[in-house]
Formats: sequence, C-alpha cells, structure tokens
Amino acid sequence: MKIIDKIRIAESSGRPFYSFEYFPPKTEAGLLNLFRRVERMARLHPAFVDITWGAGGSTAERSLEIASHIQNLSGLDTMLHLTCTNMSRSDLSEVLVEAKRLGIQNILALRGDPPNGVDEWEVSEDGLSYAVDLVRMIREEHGDYFGICVAGYPEGHEECTSYQADIQFLKEKVDAGADFVITQLFYDSNAFLRFGKDCRDAGIECPIIPGIMPIHNYNSFRRMARFCGHIPAHITEALEPIKNDDEAVREYGIRLIADMCQHLLDEGVVGLHYYTLNLEKVSTQIVTELGLLPDNVSRSLPWLPVPNASRENEAVRPIFWSNRPKSYMARTMEWDEFPNGRWGDSRSPAFGALTDYHLTRLHIVLQDRLDMWGKELQSLDDIYNVFVRFCAGEIDAMPWFDSPLAVESDLIQQQLVRLNQKGLLTINSQPRVNAAPSDDPAVGWGGAGGYVYQKAYVEFFLSAEHLHTLLEIFSRNPHISFHAINNEGTAYTNCDSVNAVTWGVFPGKEIIQPTVVDPDSFRVWKEEAFSLWMSMWGELYPTGSRSRELLEHVQDTFYLVNVVDNDFVNGDIWTLLDEIISAIQTPTRTSHDLKPSVKPIF
Amino acid sequence: MKIIDKIRIAESSGRPFYSFEYFPPKTEAGLLNLFRRVERMARLHPAFVDITWGAGGSTAERSLEIASHIQNLSGLDTMLHLTCTNMSRSDLSEVLVEAKRLGIQNILALRGDPPNGVDEWEVSEDGLSYAVDLVRMIREEHGDYFGICVAGYPEGHEECTSYQADIQFLKEKVDAGADFVITQLFYDSNAFLRFGKDCRDAGIECPIIPGIMPIHNYNSFRRMARFCGHIPAHITEALEPIKNDDEAVREYGIRLIADMCQHLLDEGVVGLHYYTLNLEKVSTQIVTELGLLPDNVSRSLPWLPVPNASRENEAVRPIFWSNRPKSYMARTMEWDEFPNGRWGDSRSPAFGALTDYHLTRLHIVLQDRLDMWGKELQSLDDIYNVFVRFCAGEIDAMPWFDSPLAVESDLIQQQLVRLNQKGLLTINSQPRVNAAPSDDPAVGWGGAGGYVYQKAYVEFFLSAEHLHTLLEIFSRNPHISFHAINNEGTAYTNCDSVNAVTWGVFPGKEIIQPTVVDPDSFRVWKEEAFSLWMSMWGELYPTGSRSRELLEHVQDTFYLVNVVDNDFVNGDIWTLLDEIISAIQTPTRTSHDLKPSVKPIF
Repeated sequence: MKIIDKIRIAESSGRPFYSFEYFPPKTEAGLLNLFRRVERMARLHPAFVDITWGAGGSTAERSLEIASHIQNLSGLDTMLHLTCTNMSRSDLSEVLVEAKRLGIQNILALRGDPPNGVDEWEVSEDGLSYAVDLVRMIREEHGDYFGICVAGYPEGHEECTSYQADIQFLKEKVDAGADFVITQLFYDSNAFLRFGKDCRDAGIECPIIPGIMPIHNYNSFRRMARFCGHIPAHITEALEPIKNDDEAVREYGIRLIADMCQHLLDEGVVGLHYYTLNLEKVSTQIVTELGLLPDNVSRSLPWLPVPNASRENEAVRPIFWSNRPKSYMARTMEWDEFPNGRWGDSRSPAFGALTDYHLTRLHIVLQDRLDMWGKELQSLDDIYNVFVRFCAGEIDAMPWFDSPLAVESDLIQQQLVRLNQKGLLTINSQPRVNAAPSDDPAVGWGGAGGYVYQKAYVEFFLSAEHLHTLLEIFSRNPHISFHAINNEGTAYTNCDSVNAVTWGVFPGKEIIQPTVVDPDSFRVWKEEAFSLWMSMWGELYPTGSRSRELLEHVQDTFYLVNVVDNDFVNGDIWTLLDEIISAIQTPTRTSHDLKPSVKPIF
Repeated sequence: MKIIDKIRIAESSGRPFYSFEYFPPKTEAGLLNLFRRVERMARLHPAFVDITWGAGGSTAERSLEIASHIQNLSGLDTMLHLTCTNMSRSDLSEVLVEAKRLGIQNILALRGDPPNGVDEWEVSEDGLSYAVDLVRMIREEHGDYFGICVAGYPEGHEECTSYQADIQFLKEKVDAGADFVITQLFYDSNAFLRFGKDCRDAGIECPIIPGIMPIHNYNSFRRMARFCGHIPAHITEALEPIKNDDEAVREYGIRLIADMCQHLLDEGVVGLHYYTLNLEKVSTQIVTELGLLPDNVSRSLPWLPVPNASRENEAVRPIFWSNRPKSYMARTMEWDEFPNGRWGDSRSPAFGALTDYHLTRLHIVLQDRLDMWGKELQSLDDIYNVFVRFCAGEIDAMPWFDSPLAVESDLIQQQLVRLNQKGLLTINSQPRVNAAPSDDPAVGWGGAGGYVYQKAYVEFFLSAEHLHTLLEIFSRNPHISFHAINNEGTAYTNCDSVNAVTWGVFPGKEIIQPTVVDPDSFRVWKEEAFSLWMSMWGELYPTGSRSRELLEHVQDTFYLVNVVDNDFVNGDIWTLLDEIISAIQTPTRTSHDLKPSVKPIF
C-alpha cells in the first residue's frame, strides 16, 4: 500500500499515525537483532517503517534485503530510502526494478550525504545531481507504481544558501511527483510549525510529516543535534547537569519529546515519524505515553497479511505454517497468483525451497539451543520433555515455531502438556470456535459485526508403533478428518479434499475461509517439519552420539499427524486425544517402547 | 452424466432405478403440457428420461429441442433417441454435434421404423443401414463423449428372421460401442428373463434394462401389443370382459405391470424403463406401488443443478432467480465457465436475453390468467390483493414464480400476507437458518453430517412514495444490507459487494456458498422482474384500459427492493418489515396514495 493512502486515511479518520525509521546494521548479529526488534515494534502497529540507504558504506547492499524482509515476512509496509550518492543512473534503475519485484511500493528519494571523509558533494559522472532528479526518474520509469516521499528541512539544509531557497527546492520535488514530505529532525516544534506554514504559502500542498529524533543518550543527542538548526536553550540547560546520568537523560528525553509531539498533534499534524536509531525502548515509550497505541487492533485475517500488491488478494493459507508464517511467505514469494476464496482454484503449483538463512535462524539466535533443548539426550522421554517444557512456557523456542507458544487458555496448555508427556509431540493446534463475535479479542478477526468459526485442529509427531491405535480410534469417529505421514512418505488419510478450518461470516460479504487443511500442501510441509528435527536440533550433537541418533530415529520413524474435528458445534477433540493416550503405553526410557522392526539404536 | 454410470451406481448400491420415455407432441399445447408433466414426474426422481426421435414426421425437429429443455431446464439427465430413418450421414452428424453442444450426453441409437405408409425399410442413399452403423459413427465422431444405448428384442424383432440372429445383431451393436440395452416392450416376464440369459450366453455382458409398457386403456394396449411377440393368454382373457370399462382396465393394468416389475426386480434386474406414452398417472402409480420412490431425497445444493458436463462445477447462483430457475438456466446456458466457490471469481460477464417462448409461458398455460389475476383492476389494492391471494395459496401462479409458492411454515405465510396487504409485494424470501443439520428435511442440502445457514432475505416491489420511509428504517439497522432500484435504474444501496446468503459447512470440505446477493446480477434481474408486469399481466388488458394503466403505473414507478438481515444468529427481519408497514399509510382505493409527482392516472 502507498503510504500517502495511509496518510489520507489517518487524515479522514482523525486518528494520527506513527512510523519508525531503521538503518542497516553492519554485522550479522546486528541484523538478526534488528529483525527481532522490528518484529516486536510491529506489535505497536506503526503505519509503516523505513530503511535508510547504506550509501557508500559496506551496508549499502543490505538496505534492499532488509526492506524486503520486513515488507514480505514481517508484514509491515516498508519504505526504502534511495540516494543519488555513488549511484549511477543504471544502478538506481536496477534498485527500483528490484524493489518493485520485491513488492516494495514506497521510496524516500534523497540526494544523500557526501561519502565519509568527503566534504563537498560531487555528482558521479552518469549519476543524478539532486533528489528532484530522482523523483522525476522514478515517475518516468515507473509511473504511479511507487509512492514517493521527499525530505524537508524546517531549519534549512546545512548546505543551503537560504531557508526560502530550500522551500523552493522542496516545492520542485513535490511538483516533480513526490506524494508527501518527512522533515529533518528538530527540537523546536515552533520551527516545524512555521516551516509547515511557509511551505503552504509557497504552494506545497501535500502532507508534511515531522521527523522526530528521540533522545537516547547525551552523546548521540550531541551528534544528532548538528542536523538541526538550533537547540532551544532550555534543553541544553536541562541536559547539562544530568549528561552523565544515562537514565536521567533518557527520562528527560522521553518527557521532552512526548511533550513536543503532543504539541504537534494539538496543532493538527497527522503523523509522527520517529528516527529510532534501531533502538526500541524510547520510541515505544513515547508513542505509548502519547496514548497513540490502538486499544484493540483487529486482525483483518487470522494470519498477518503481506502488504504487497502482488499478495493483496491472498485470502487463504494452509494451516501447517501458522507457527512458521515467515517460512510460508518466503516459500510462496514467487507465486504469481494467490488463493482467494478457495484454496483449490488459484493455488500456484510450486512451493519454493526454504533457503533464507536468516529465516531459519532468526528466532533462536539469541538463545543457546543446547541450553534449551538439552546438552545430552538419553531417551525419547528427554525429547518428549522438551516439548512438555515448551508447552508449559518454560522454554521459548522450538524448531517448528517462529515465536514462543501462544496458548489461548490454561485449559489448552494443560491438555497440550498431557499429550506431549505421552509422546504426542504437538507442533500446532487451534480450538473449536462456534460463532464467536468477529471482534472477540482472542479469536476474532475481520473487524466487528461478523461471526468467526474454527474447527478444532491438532498436529503432532507420534511414534510409528502407536499409529495403528491412532488410526483405529480415528476411524471410529465420523467427525474426524486426519492425515498421517512419515518422512519417507508412507501416508494414511480419510480425506482427500481441502478442508476449511477457519472461516468467517460478515455483513454484506461472501464467506471468508482463510485457513485450510490441504493434502498437497501437507506433503510439502512434512518435508519441512521432518527436516527441522536435524537441521535445527540434531546438528547440535556430534555424529554418532546417542543424542543425535535419538533425533535421527524420531525423524526416520515417527509419523506427522494432523487431525480436524469437523464438528465445530459440539465436538470435543481433547477427549478423543485422551482416548488415544489412554490406549498407548506410556513411553519409558528403555528400548522396549520402540518397535522391534525399526533399527535398534539403544 | 452418462446413464451407464448411473446404472453402475444402482448395481453397486442395490437400489433399482426407473426411467421414463416421452415422445414429441404434435401441438404447441401438447408440448407445454408435456413439460409440465415431466416436471411433476421429475419429483419421482427417475434416473433419466428419454425422448423419442420424431423420424419422418412433423415432430422430428422437436426432439432435440425437447431433450435440451428437459436436460437444461428441468435438471434431468436426458437421453435422445436417434434413428437412421430419412437421415443422411451429415444430418446425423449435425444432430450429434448439436446434442453435444446442448449438453446432452446420452443417445439411444436405433435403426428406426420405416416411414408411415412404407412397408419395407430402404436405406437413404447417403444414410446408414443399421443401428450398429450409427453406434460406430457416434464412437468414431465423438469417442467416449456420448453414452450409447441400443434396443434389444426379447421376443425377436418383427422383421427379423430368427431370435438367434437378433441376439447376434445385438451383440454386434454392443461390440461396436453401446454401453447398455433397453428392450422392446413385453408382457411375459419370463420372455425377458430368457432373453437376458441368452444374451449372456452369447457374450453380451452389458446391462440389459427391461422396457415396460403400462396398460393405459384397452385400445392403446391392442395397438402396442403388436410390438411384442405374444400376449400371455391370461391377460387377454382378463381384459376381454372389462375392455369397455377404462377404469377397470387401468386398475387391472397397474396390478399386472406392478406384479411383472416386482418379478423382474426379484430376479435381479437393476432398473425399469417405462414407456409412458406421455401419460403420467399409471407409470407414477406403478413405481409408487413398487416402493421404489426414495424416502427423502437429499438436495445436493439449495437449487437444482443442471446435469451437464459444462455446468458440473457450478456452485454459486444469485438468489434473484430462485423462483424462476429455468430463466436463470436459460440465460446462462451459453456461459463457458460457471462460478465455483465465489461468485466474483469466475462469473461469465453476460447474462443472455430471455427468448424462449415456452419458458415465459410454461407455468401458466393451463390457467386463465384473467381468472387468476382479475378481469378488471380498479385500484392498486386490487393488485395487492392478487399478491395476497397468491401468498395465501388461493391462486397458483404469478409472473415471478415458476411454481406455486412453497412456504416453509404458516408463520411465514401469515407474515407474507400481511406485507402484501400493505403493499410490500413480495416475490422472493428465505428465512434465517443458523446451523441447521444439513439433512434437515425443510432447509437441508448437501447430504448428512454438515451444518447449513441462511441469512433472512425478502424481495418485494414497493410504491416509490414509501421509499424514503424504507431507506430511513433500513439505515438505522446495522445488520441490514439492501438494494432498491426502479425500472429506470435509479438505485439505492448500502452494499456494493457480493453477499453470501446461503452456505454450508461440511466435514473435510471447503465452505460451500451456493446462493448470493450480487449487485450486478440484481440489475439484470430487475429488467426481467419489471418487464414481467406487462409481458405477463398488463398485456391481458386493452391498451388504454384502467387495468393496464394501473399495471403500467406500477412498472414505471415502483421500486424493486431486496433486503438481507446479516445477523443470521439473532436477527428478526419480520419485525423490521413490520416497522416499515407500520410507518407507511395503508393503501386505499383512491388516488391520494399515489405520489403527486407521478402522472395522475385516476
């Protein structure tokens, strides 16, 4: 979505927005850190985020990659900065084509600072001289596809000859096709307000969004202050005595900036753009203090949609990836059509391979997997216990989950713990929901006024020796649809069609069925689900070790089972699963609970 | 669907089928009569019907038309007879291509009788000699597309030299590609059973279905008897004394044929094919006496699907034509793709014009429209009263209904009567249904094990003067979606999207939403709905008469309104409509209830 359209919505709803700017980190660890941070800040529902262009530095090539990751996998509208610095026309053209291909629809067009160590700005031979040239080039080459933002300087650009000349340059950029303006940082809100009025007087009619630089600590404040014309004396005076007390500086800064933002809001600004410097807490605290966080953000769908034009009609996903949504988004990024209404009708045939290194590592980079999952595994019970502890909330990560387990209630948590203790190693589940209001805080989606439904679903790994018991109990129950498959592909099912497991009924709409169980996708998912045993866990242990052989044994012999209770009105899937765990022997630490026909590894 | 597939289903389910044969009537009145009859007999759920080929007579060209009408508009699998008589190869080719185009998938391939007045069979110069040639030609030209039936002669063909030679001819026809056999009539069931055994001995392995000729009256029995080898003496003896008593002949005939059919069923025949001679009661009574009528036929969808390959994926229709399904089927017959899953995705853009004369006249040919709707109309109340009497079941037909009104309960009937008394002239409605079992006898469809839902829906004409009141009340109610439009196209709505108003949730399936309210289709429907005022009703009265001007006034000034209560869980559309009729003045017979701005015609 174009940011200008979001601004227009904010204008007409009277509900101000905020947005966050990040820069490309220099290290791999910093990058993973940033992704985690952006993900957490996404829960604040910024209208968009933007990624600065690492012009001339080692981080240049990173900007596109980061913008794409956030746009496509974190589900936030992302604006990419683009500067003329050190870029030829053809370089810029290439970046724009690639940005479009990646679904990025917003560009902040800048001239850019001179490279480090260079005082004077020099145009590269075949490059562009000014941001206005870049705006023109984007419009020439891509018409209306991109939303374009340009920078405004409330206290004059540092290289500029006069304030008035600066406003004229800005007007040229807007006239060339920019949709809106974000300003350079300032600490004098009156300077911004005066600038806004002067722009209007000069005929600049598009939205002008203030750029806000929070005060994180004294040193960074001093460094940043050079970008604005002046610091009001009362700020310098207030900071001077506390400049060595980081905590005091931060508290003062939050108060100061929050007051400044409130002043701007009172004067009618429609949004606030925060330069986060990749830091989380201060910006979060300011928007919280301002009372701008939406009380209860309704999900438009049960899963987080990707804000790309190519995916705007996407309305159905298989349930299997619901705990690994980034993997699903990455594996379907190349689809040219997305299912809408029905899974079967427009599904692109091929899931891509899972190749993104960050994606596979992202959610556990900060924790020692050995600490979480055991430095040594002695038995299947040790494995089962890891699942139990994850369900109990004692450990944060498992290979099959992008985030810690979100359980709807204690009741379900207890049930999951019980299943895992008995060797039904759950990796996905959803409860039965029968006509809950669509704005229900726990299970609602799609906005108010409708009703939402779910069929109960549980997915788990299970030792092959219990498969017969399971199939026997499932086949007695007419409401049950199931699939069971092992790593080799031996499969059992009683359902070869697509089963809608989440749907909603809304006023004046067709029925929406955003989550399905689909036999074909399940075969794709099982490859991923089984491979994670070794790629994420087994590889922690030396080849030939008992721990590793145990996990190989699970990968080689267990079945991945999914089960749907089709009776969403009266069904009770937990009683059914209890019946299964009553029927199977409690796993023990000795080898006799392994099927004699499988390779005896103990 | 190919009939052979239905036979295989009957074989494997152990549930015998029956089928009805009709011939093309000679007159227009006879044709309309036949259509009505077929429609009534369709409620007996025959496996298929077949239409004889009017070879050489004036009715020849009618066979295709009739077969298409029944196949496409009455929803019955229809088999077309085709004979070599008086047909060149290219004639036959053309008929086959046309039959395929019309969705007919079954052909009964016959040589045909010599034309009337001709004793000896002569092959036309470029024609075919025998049925076997026709079977070969069908297979050569259309591969497996058509199901092919051929005729068998249990007591020998009248022109044949020997019984054994006849069986050899039959074997040739089957070897050439016929799927199954229907026999010539007989009155000696042992003759049929012997024939069946002899066919098997000769290597004919396909199903052999007995052709049954009921005894309608003595004269027709004598005429028909010449087609079978012999009449058992006990039949002739029993009929002789009662031959002048039509009622006694019929009663005897029903008993006789029912016993014969029972004998055949006991011996294991899988189906019974009735030569109805276009008569209804005797065949109906026989299948009823045999206990073959299905107890409770579950509808696969809320509307009757067309059994054509081209429509086999059709899964969504607009609600507007639910009382005129034939019109919808006729107007969409040329679509090359039908909506499946969602209305919006695959809807063909253009509805065809309504041109079939039979279609527009069909349901009221036997009743005097003037008798039903009034020889003279004095006021709007007279018009309202016609609607009231239709809702009360006092008259059978209205221009907007293919069949008499089917109301689900007395309660709804009273509500409809009340609305129509006040000038909300209802032409369509459905009640709210919240999770009824899908095998509910009143509202269920789709088979057992699921849940079905409906949003309450009412559609009616309303005087323009009350439109404001209506819109005001609707706009106060957040659950209401509505459209109101007059003949000129002035329209009001609060919903521009497709609204699913009937849907079902079934085990292991995607959500099925077979009925929708669609704004685009509503504009097409309103043309039809308004035109029926004059084409079916107004034209009964002389130009310039008060009656005609009243109806013209309604056509010109009333609004067609549809309203959906989106709250299918708790909504109460009747209370809402009561609010409207409380708010509007009771119409009177004087002119003051007409809007002053419209042409005063009183």
